This record gives sequence, C-alpha cells and structure tokens, in this order.
Amino acid sequence: MGEQKKMVEAITSMEEDFAKWYTDIVKKAELIDYSSVRGCMILRPYGYAIWENLQKILDAKFKETGHENVYLPMFIPESLLQKEKDHVEGFAPEVAWVTYGGGEKLNERWCVRPTSETLFCEHYAHIINSYRDLPKLYNQWCSVVRWEKTTRPFLRTLEFLWQEGHTMHETEEEAWAETERMLGVYADVCKDSLAIPVVKGRKTEKEKFAGGVATYTIEAMMHDGKALQSGTSHYFGQGFAKAFGIQFTGRDNTLQYPHQTSWGVTTRLIGAIIMTHGDDNGLVLPPAIAPIQVAIIPIAQHKEGVLEKARALADRLKPNFRVKLDDSDNSPGWKFAEYEMKGVPLRLEIGPKDIEQNQCVLVRRDTREKVIVPLSELETKIPEMLAELHKSIYEKALKNRENRTFTAHNMEELKKLADENSGFFKTMWCGDEACENRVKEEVGLSSRCMPFEQEHLGDTCVCCGRKAEKMIYWGRAY
Amino acid sequence: MGEQKKMVEAITSMEEDFAKWYTDIVKKAELIDYSSVRGCMILRPYGYAIWENLQKILDAKFKETGHENVYLPMFIPESLLQKEKDHVEGFAPEVAWVTYGGGEKLNERWCVRPTSETLFCEHYAHIINSYRDLPKLYNQWCSVVRWEKTTRPFLRTLEFLWQEGHTMHETEEEAWAETERMLGVYADVCKDSLAIPVVKGRKTEKEKFAGGVATYTIEAMMHDGKALQSGTSHYFGQGFAKAFGIQFTGRDNTLQYPHQTSWGVTTRLIGAIIMTHGDDNGLVLPPAIAPIQVAIIPIAQHKEGVLEKARALADRLKPNFRVKLDDSDNSPGWKFAEYEMKGVPLRLEIGPKDIEQNQCVLVRRDTREKVIVPLSELETKIPEMLAELHKSIYEKALKNRENRTFTAHNMEELKKLADENSGFFKTMWCGDEACENRVKEEVGLSSRCMPFEQEHLGDTCVCCGRKAEKMIYWGRAY
Ligand SMILES: [Zn+2]
Ligand SMILES: [Zn+2]
Repeated sequence: MGEQKKMVEAITSMEEDFAKWYTDIVKKAELIDYSSVRGCMILRPYGYAIWENLQKILDAKFKETGHENVYLPMFIPESLLQKEKDHVEGFAPEVAWVTYGGGEKLNERWCVRPTSETLFCEHYAHIINSYRDLPKLYNQWCSVVRWEKTTRPFLRTLEFLWQEGHTMHETEEEAWAETERMLGVYADVCKDSLAIPVVKGRKTEKEKFAGGVATYTIEAMMHDGKALQSGTSHYFGQGFAKAFGIQFTGRDNTLQYPHQTSWGVTTRLIGAIIMTHGDDNGLVLPPAIAPIQVAIIPIAQHKEGVLEKARALADRLKPNFRVKLDDSDNSPGWKFAEYEMKGVPLRLEIGPKDIEQNQCVLVRRDTREKVIVPLSELETKIPEMLAELHKSIYEKALKNRENRTFTAHNMEELKKLADENSGFFKTMWCGDEACENRVKEEVGLSSRCMPFEQEHLGDTCVCCGRKAEKMIYWGRAY
Repeated sequence: MGEQKKMVEAITSMEEDFAKWYTDIVKKAELIDYSSVRGCMILRPYGYAIWENLQKILDAKFKETGHENVYLPMFIPESLLQKEKDHVEGFAPEVAWVTYGGGEKLNERWCVRPTSETLFCEHYAHIINSYRDLPKLYNQWCSVVRWEKTTRPFLRTLEFLWQEGHTMHETEEEAWAETERMLGVYADVCKDSLAIPVVKGRKTEKEKFAGGVATYTIEAMMHDGKALQSGTSHYFGQGFAKAFGIQFTGRDNTLQYPHQTSWGVTTRLIGAIIMTHGDDNGLVLPPAIAPIQVAIIPIAQHKEGVLEKARALADRLKPNFRVKLDDSDNSPGWKFAEYEMKGVPLRLEIGPKDIEQNQCVLVRRDTREKVIVPLSELETKIPEMLAELHKSIYEKALKNRENRTFTAHNMEELKKLADENSGFFKTMWCGDEACENRVKEEVGLSSRCMPFEQEHLGDTCVCCGRKAEKMIYWGRAY
C-alpha cells in the first residue's frame, strides 16, 4: 500500500524545476536507490536492465567490428599511473587511493582505476612484438572511480559503469580511422537505439583527454537546452606507446611504435535518455532498450475469462517482445500511472468488451494515442507502433535541438543569445584558447565541439575578430 | 615467429609437476597475463570469452528462476561493514582500504567490497516494507577484492570476477529451499556445461560463511586428486536482517524479519575446467563454454580451391557453431598444436584430396580420434561429436573421482590412506569441531562437506570413536 500511495503523488513538473523533476524520476521509476556510499548509486533491477539492453547492443557492434573483450585489474600502482606525464596530471587529483591491504600498510599505494590506459599499455608491451600482432582491438566492460565532489545519478557519480575500448594499430591512418569509426558506432547507437540525435565533432585542445592527441565527441542536447557529452573517442598517437616502451618490428624490419586509440560510453547515457525523452508523467523509453516494451493491463480482471485471456496474450507475445502482464490487485488507473512513470512504450488494455470483439486497445506512451487493434493483427501492429514511437521521439528531440541552436557572429550577439536562451550557440572561432577562455568567463559557455559537418558562418572569430579557423558549438553542459 | 617458437616448446607434463603444468597452460593458452598489480590477473580475450560464455549460461538460469540483476557500489564504508559482528570479523582482515580520495584524507575509510551482504541489506531495508515486497531475488555480476598473500591464476587472486545472489524471503522454508535450489543450479551447470562432476553437501560450522547459519557447497576433484570448492550457497536466517533493521508487515499484520540467502560462483570455475580436463597437450574445453568449438585447418592451402572451400565451410557452419578458420601462414602441424593447446573440442581438416571426395577429417581434442565425414553430414555429425566429447570428459572426471575416493573408519586407516593417496577420504564424524581440528593437524586434511547423499560407513566417529552424526568428506584443497 505504501507503494500505491507513492505512485499517486505526482512528480515535480519539468517546467517548474527540471533538476528536481530529474531526481524525482530516477527514484520513482525505480532506476536507482541511494546508499551510505557517498556519490555512488545503486542500480535497481529496472535501471540495470536498461544498461544490460544497451550493453548487448553495443557489445554486438564492437564484436561485429572485430573487437574482443578483456578484463584488467581494478587497481593501478602509483608508479604505473605516473608513466605518462599528462595522463597522471589529469587523473591523479581525482582518484581514490588504497593504502592498506590485509591489515598492513602498502609499500606503494594503489589507485582504483579512473580509466585503464596505463594497464592496457603495460599489457600491450608484453604481447605486441610484430606487425603481425596488430591491430589489437580490445574492449573492457567495468566500473571506474573518479572522486567527484558533487554528484548526480547517472550524470556524474563517484563510481560509474562503462566500457573502454583500447586499440593499437600499425599505422597512423588506421588509428585515426578507428577513432572516427567508433565515434560513428556511438552516434548510430544513439540515433537507432536511443532515439537521441547527436552532433559529432572534435574537442578543443583545452577539453581533450589527458595524454591524448585528439578527442572526438558526440554531444546531445537535453530537453532543457543543456548539453550532455555522451561519448568520446580519442586518438593517442604514439605518446603512451613511447612512455611504456611498446614497439613492434614493422614490415620493413625496423622497430616502430604503434598508434593508439581509446573510446568509451558510460551509464551517463541513461541520464541522456531520461532528459531527452521524459515528460511530466515520467520516463519515456526508446523501445530498443526498454526492459518492458508492452505492459498488458487487464480491465475488470475479476470478470470471468479476462485474466485467462490476458495471460494467453502475454504468452503469445513473449517470444517477440519484452512483455509484462500486471495481474496484481492494483486498479487499472494505478497501473496506467505506474507504467507511464516507467516509460513503457506501449500499454495493452484488454477487458470483457474487447474480448467479445476479439480486439484490444494499444496506447502509445509518448502521445497517449489509443488505437483499437484486432487481436489477430498484434504481431504486425506492435512493431509498427514501436517503430513509430521511436521515430517520433527522435524527431521531437531533433526539433528541440534545432529550435534551441543559435548563431552568433560577435560577443554582443553571443551574450544576448546566451542570456535569453538555453541551447547550442554556434560561432566561428580562431582556434586560440584565450578566446575559448573569454567565452567561458564572459558568457558562461564552454566549448562543446567543432562539428565534423562544418558551416561557414563568417570569416572572423566570435571573440577576437581575427581570422576564423573553425565553426564551433558552445553550450552549458551537465 | 616469436609466437611460433613459443608454441613449439612443450609444456611441463602433468605427472612431472602439476602446479607448473597449470601455470604453463594459463599462459600458453593465452588465458591470462600478469601485470605489475600483485596477485591480480589480466583476463585475455580467450580467457575472458570462456567467462562470458559461462556468464551467459548462468545468467539465463538465474533469470529463468526469477532473479533480477542489480549493481551496487564497489565501496563499503567501515561503519557499514561493522554492522554484523561475525561478518566484519570474517572479512575485515582481508580487505583493501581506501583512505584518500580526491587528494584528501577521508573521515571514514572505505573498503573495496570483499562481498556485498552489507550493501544489499542496507538497500533491502529501504525497499522491503510488506510481505507483498517478498521475495526479493537479486543477483550482481561484479569483481571483489580479498587481500590474499599467495595467489594463483583463477584459483586464488586478490581481485576476482564473480556473481553474488542475495535474496530475501517471507518464510524460513522458502529461504532454505532457495539455498538448495541455487546450489542445484550450480551443480547442474557444472555437470551439463562444464562436464565437471561435483559433490553437493553442507560445510561444517568451522568452514561456513562468516555471519551465516549454514553454507552449502559443491566440491569438485581435480585431476591430481585435490579438492576445489567450486560454488557456495548460504542460508543466513534473520541475522543480517536484525542487524540492519529489515522488517516487513506480514500477512497477519505483525512486523517480521525476512529470511535471507546468498550464493556465488567465481572465475575459479575456469581453474576447475583446466585442472579437471586438461592434459599434457594443453586445455580441453567443454563445448558449451569453448570460445571456439570447431577450428578449421586447411591442408596444402596454397593449392587451388582449398582456401575457398575452407572459407565456404566456415561461413556455412558459423550460424550453428563457434567456428574459427585459421588461414594464416603457419604450418598445419603448428596449427594443430595451437588449437590443442587452446583446448578447441573439434579440429576440422580439409585438403585437396578431401575436397575431391566431398569430405573432411574431424579430430576430437580429448581422444585425438580422427573421423572422415562427408561434407553433407557436418551439421549432424559435429553436434554429435561435441556431445560425445562432453560425455566422455565428464565420465573420465567422474572415474578419476571414484578411483580417488577412499573410506576410512579410524585415524590409523585415515593416516595411511592420506599418506599414500591424494583424493577424497570419506569417514563418519561425531560433529565435534575438536575432531575436525585433529584431522587437520594430524592428517593434514580439511573437511570438504557433509554430502547431501549420506552413506552409513559405520557407527562411530573416525577420530574420537564416539557416536557418529554424519558421513563427511575430507581432502586437501586448492
Ligand atoms: Zn579568437
Ligand atoms: Zn569425533
């Protein structure tokens, strides 16, 4: 009954307080629970099932593109972390240190991995000897720790789940191609499985990965106009290889350093799903990753034959869809609210009258549109409606992004636009970090990326007025 | 070429030095690599793929039996670990402590989870209110850390991968049934997927889990006669529930404490596979978890049509089997040795003469028996031979266990048998820990379990001669 009471309370509305709406949803849709471990979250069955579905999709794509999974230790001895100078500077301030083990003080402290470049490089030095050993295309599913001061479920947590790809290549060209290819995989999964449109582009020098040469990113826009960096792919050049002494005998019989990449996405993508598609009734989940795709709600279930028919329908649909029949004692109205909160894409209602007429009612989560469907047509109608929902929430998100993308040619314009709006602000940029810093300080915007698809908005930098190098996106980010 | 040279060197023979044979195999079959992280191992693609296959099988069984996956933090604050007295005493000496995070000393140190009872209990206290919330059947896939002094790949490592089931039940009966059911799932997977016979039984009070009421175990016997505890399932009673204040309103409207279980298996099972089935040529993998089930080796591959035919065969077989075609420049002899080392269940050889006659040669890894098979019959013959191999290695392991299981009625007999043999020693036992300790001190054997299938070997305890309570297995364990 406590459960029932909880669901009846409405969540905070998005317009009223977007941040509160978000934390209401993650709790009430039973995605997470908090614990006494500061900054870490408990992924409850419904939240973890979303991650499992996403993992399956990504893992299949990684394997299709020739990658293999491995598992490396969760600890990094301090001396190993220090081997690449920029890398340790970037990560050392935010790691957790283990100093005691088995009741004794350690001679050398170990950090809990914030990322695993150093471990992969040590291993690669053992197993790469010849160009015949290349490429090495490895991926790891694990959790990592970064000691964040302020945290928010999915978006920024002290520990988070992710995958980290780490690859080694014979040539620079191959490594650049891999960097771009894996960003493409991420962008495609966002579009095709999560219904999230993203901008593919390159990060500025200031924003790139500690120890890398270049960072590619996919940037998504949330419902409130804020940006969310949703996945990154890094080209490392030979920096780590040199620091770790990884060399191979090339085709010309000379010793060479391989060219490296890494790339990752995290449980943060679940935050992206929530803030891209959710509404005042709760989550709206893209069918590809929804733990339940069709919720079957019997109407007047005490009447003869209703539950039997609902159960038969559930059994019939289970081989093709992720189906849940709710035959609990709760009222239909309560169940409607429950599965709306949980973002289930389709609700199937079936009552005595429907049974008489060999039909049922299908209700889309996003539009709440009701369609009467003959029972004989469910196997074709359900995938059709799931596909329509996917397309429709993608287009809605794309439209939101388009409506909230603004062009500025100088600082006045940029300040005015940024004062009045939340969104992406595109401008030309000279490439100088001083201008990037000025935009941050004076307008409060951080650079998001230099999109691969460049546009010519003018000839001069939005900030200094000198010759522009690139079109760049700015925004306020999670 | 370094690779080729390495493979030609034979591994240490099992009879000469079983421990060395084991570490040779884990390296040469490319299951693991060592790193500068003491006591931790790197699971290489081939080793990790075995774990992934095993995970898939277990995960499906857990879900079939109604369990849901969750993910809890990897850290446990010291105050949380201390809530259950026996539990903290059992685990505190072997944990790793994080004392610094984000550059600052922590007010309270956090251990890296050695197991997650305390975290699950804290969460259960939040979400269990009514009998309607029960049972809660949760499972977690993760890694845990226990600060072991001496380690061996898979068998005992400082960090290891596992799954931990944690369940809460309305009644004591249900919880006992769950404890037994999950041990049964483990035993079935060992038999049906890993071809490992196990003895199901109950641990003595001395050997049970810290904080639990009873521990069930599956005990396997390795090729050398030593025992390997391969999976455990614990009944906790209400001890943790009381320590963590987990209460629910029962059907009779009174406040009650739920009854708890937990159960787990680890990457140690890969060690069990190696030491149960391996031979002097390397691994022998049960087909259900073999990353490659059929290795296709072209013979005289430079001859016209051979590679094309081999590739066509690989494409044809891929939908039904995990197939690898090795079309590298290495000699067939080298390839034979390579896939024998890796324990691939079936080798498929195809050369010009075979092609002429529309046939190929299938070679079983365990017996090296060669069979000429018409190409048209492969889809039926391969599963047949895989099933035969599975049955055959299971029976071989069972026979080894039977040959190495001895009965003793008094300490003289037990000492003599244990001096001359390695294996399981079954005796009657009074149930007194003093006798258990004497067997350990005087004979060097630890208690393995009191099998569910009891036999009556006599009326008196092997040690003290008093009235016996139970038949018990003793052994030397990994
Ligand atoms: Zn400028
Ligand atoms: Zn006794």
